[in-house]
Amino acid sequence: MDISYRGRTIQASPIRKLKPYADGAIARGIKVYFINIGDTDVPTPQPVHDAFHSFSDKVLSYGPAQGSLELRQAIADYFNYYRIPIAADDVVITTGGSEAILFSFSAVADPGEEIIIPEPFYTNYNGYASLASVNIIPLTLRVEDGYRLPPRAEFEAKITPKTKALVLCSPNNPTGTVYTRKELRTVADIVKERDLFLIGDEVYKEFIYDGATHTSILEFEDIRDRTIVVDSISKRYSCCGARIGAVITRNSAIYQAVLRFAQARLCPPSVEQRAALAAYRMGMDYFNPVREEYQRRRDVLYEGLRSIPGVVTYKPQGAFYVTVKLPIKDTEHFVVWMLTEFNLDGETVMVAPAQGFYSTPGKGLDEVRIAHVLNEDDLRRAITVLKAGLDKYKTLFP
Amino acid sequence: MDISYRGRTIQASPIRKLKPYADGAIARGIKVYFINIGDTDVPTPQPVHDAFHSFSDKVLSYGPAQGSLELRQAIADYFNYYRIPIAADDVVITTGGSEAILFSFSAVADPGEEIIIPEPFYTNYNGYASLASVNIIPLTLRVEDGYRLPPRAEFEAKITPKTKALVLCSPNNPTGTVYTRKELRTVADIVKERDLFLIGDEVYKEFIYDGATHTSILEFEDIRDRTIVVDSISKRYSCCGARIGAVITRNSAIYQAVLRFAQARLCPPSVEQRAALAAYRMGMDYFNPVREEYQRRRDVLYEGLRSIPGVVTYKPQGAFYVTVKLPIKDTEHFVVWMLTEFNLDGETVMVAPAQGFYSTPGKGLDEVRIAHVLNEDDLRRAITVLKAGLDKYKTLFP
Repeated sequence: MDISYRGRTIQASPIRKLKPYADGAIARGIKVYFINIGDTDVPTPQPVHDAFHSFSDKVLSYGPAQGSLELRQAIADYFNYYRIPIAADDVVITTGGSEAILFSFSAVADPGEEIIIPEPFYTNYNGYASLASVNIIPLTLRVEDGYRLPPRAEFEAKITPKTKALVLCSPNNPTGTVYTRKELRTVADIVKERDLFLIGDEVYKEFIYDGATHTSILEFEDIRDRTIVVDSISKRYSCCGARIGAVITRNSAIYQAVLRFAQARLCPPSVEQRAALAAYRMGMDYFNPVREEYQRRRDVLYEGLRSIPGVVTYKPQGAFYVTVKLPIKDTEHFVVWMLTEFNLDGETVMVAPAQGFYSTPGKGLDEVRIAHVLNEDDLRRAITVLKAGLDKYKTLFP
Repeated sequence: MDISYRGRTIQASPIRKLKPYADGAIARGIKVYFINIGDTDVPTPQPVHDAFHSFSDKVLSYGPAQGSLELRQAIADYFNYYRIPIAADDVVITTGGSEAILFSFSAVADPGEEIIIPEPFYTNYNGYASLASVNIIPLTLRVEDGYRLPPRAEFEAKITPKTKALVLCSPNNPTGTVYTRKELRTVADIVKERDLFLIGDEVYKEFIYDGATHTSILEFEDIRDRTIVVDSISKRYSCCGARIGAVITRNSAIYQAVLRFAQARLCPPSVEQRAALAAYRMGMDYFNPVREEYQRRRDVLYEGLRSIPGVVTYKPQGAFYVTVKLPIKDTEHFVVWMLTEFNLDGETVMVAPAQGFYSTPGKGLDEVRIAHVLNEDDLRRAITVLKAGLDKYKTLFP
């Protein structure tokens, strides 16, 4: 009575598996600064609250499989603001960006086929690849390059007859790297010439700093049939628990496949779609103070990390993350030690070992992802505690 | 640039594909009685509304991947009421019963492996089987038997080395049949002796008539390691749009696999889990008037159908459905004709062609599923209109 191979081999969440150690620290009275995950403290906007409060349907019934027309139109309008010609009928609302990833992977690839993803990458791609029985082929990037995309030849070397798509996440989780138009153009050329799909994870689009501009893969008109964007309101509007995302594509065969996957699960949550609609209707000015706040935090984090001897870092231009190399051998051991053995005046820090963001075995062992999701004062203190922890750890485990 | 095989071959929803014809009838001013789908008119209970209205979290954040402990405990308590020993840690909250099906199929079977399901069956099993690249092996039941389960030998004949599980839905959608303990015991023996899993879809458990009792597959202690129940609040509490379901299993390997699938998609909707908790906390008396109302409707439908010459029917004991044979050759053609060509004093009826509930080609062409989801007066009128339509149709297409 064996369970399935995919059921046996899917990874446990590397983010969540260390949580018991943090719980233990808290139980011992230690204050833990959580900069391991992207749980933002930006308040969920009032119109979202209002949407929940105004729910008065006699029956909380199914909605359309592709999501409500109003929300699909609002998302189309949002892309139109960025001068990307998207129509409501190019949008399928999904249950979180998560489901958008599952549907996109499943629409382009069958079991045993391959999707190339630069690593480190968002760890849940692994879970979806297992569930869909699709193989992720990693393309390793380097902290010393700020995790920029490699030359074309390195992509080409990963392509096999089984390759169906490339996945690019920009602004990137876990690196904060924002790909330039030139980098993306190179990838667009590859997918065109090698007859592949390009899946873009652009959920951090608004969180982009130093006046940099975001380039969407949807802007490359010559590959409009090959592009699929997975989107989500989770970070955009501090609505992680709402589970509203979207697939955006102008390839009608992909759209129909995603729509049929969507029909199998009936519909995304009804009330949350109204909450999402209320959020989109706030307009684009909403993002300015949020972006400015995150940029200040990013600056605090970057300056702090630069001040720690032996840390290899770079200035991330987007999202809430940076993935840095620490001057130690095993960051998972370090993270557990910080939560179980160390404190500075009753405080410690949790960062995320980067190993879980790599699919190549042995990669990322000396790296961690840090999220700048705390206010500036807390973030400064967290870095001070991290620095003290590293100093102590290096004396114990030289 | 082909899309995936599963993306190309997944069925369009047979339920939803005829909706444009109904929309057309409404646009022409025709009143349509919708007895094709299980959209209930039972009001969503007030505590569910209250839960939405009391949402006041500063940040709508992620919850646990397996769902909130309070809701898992409430679901365990609910099973305990039925004297089924389930603990909170046997429950994973899912995004609708839909996701519970996907996770269950994927936990027991890999691409190319087989799951046996008596047909007619809930049409969305097909969609999930496509998404998971699992093959459904149908076992055809007969209207003349009231769609009861066949003798053991017919099950055995479908088992191959690739078979991983059987799926049973009771009370059944689309037939309303409630399997007896004896029928279920036979299947329990088969899964034990042939080393298989048994997946039970029991989402209509409360809708059971004539004093009949529901037997859960979880009651067979000798196969406790082999049973997986998919559950949902959609019908139970008139909360279809909330998308809250659950996987219940006491097999720890299956539980861990489902948990990891769940981690990949982060969490089920947060606010809806509180709404579900409020619903479960209403207690079991809530169901009595709802059940009595549905039983009266079932009686109206059954008596009405019996009065139509040439209709082969039976008295369904559960859910809101009956699947009957009509005295015509092609019920899909009939349904479209009813919506486009026919009306009785400005009214028509939409029923569901049963072909979509079969996976064996050519089966169910002369059958339809009818849902008793209208109040008694409307249901009587719908049957009168249906009868008149059948009379007219038979003269036109003898």
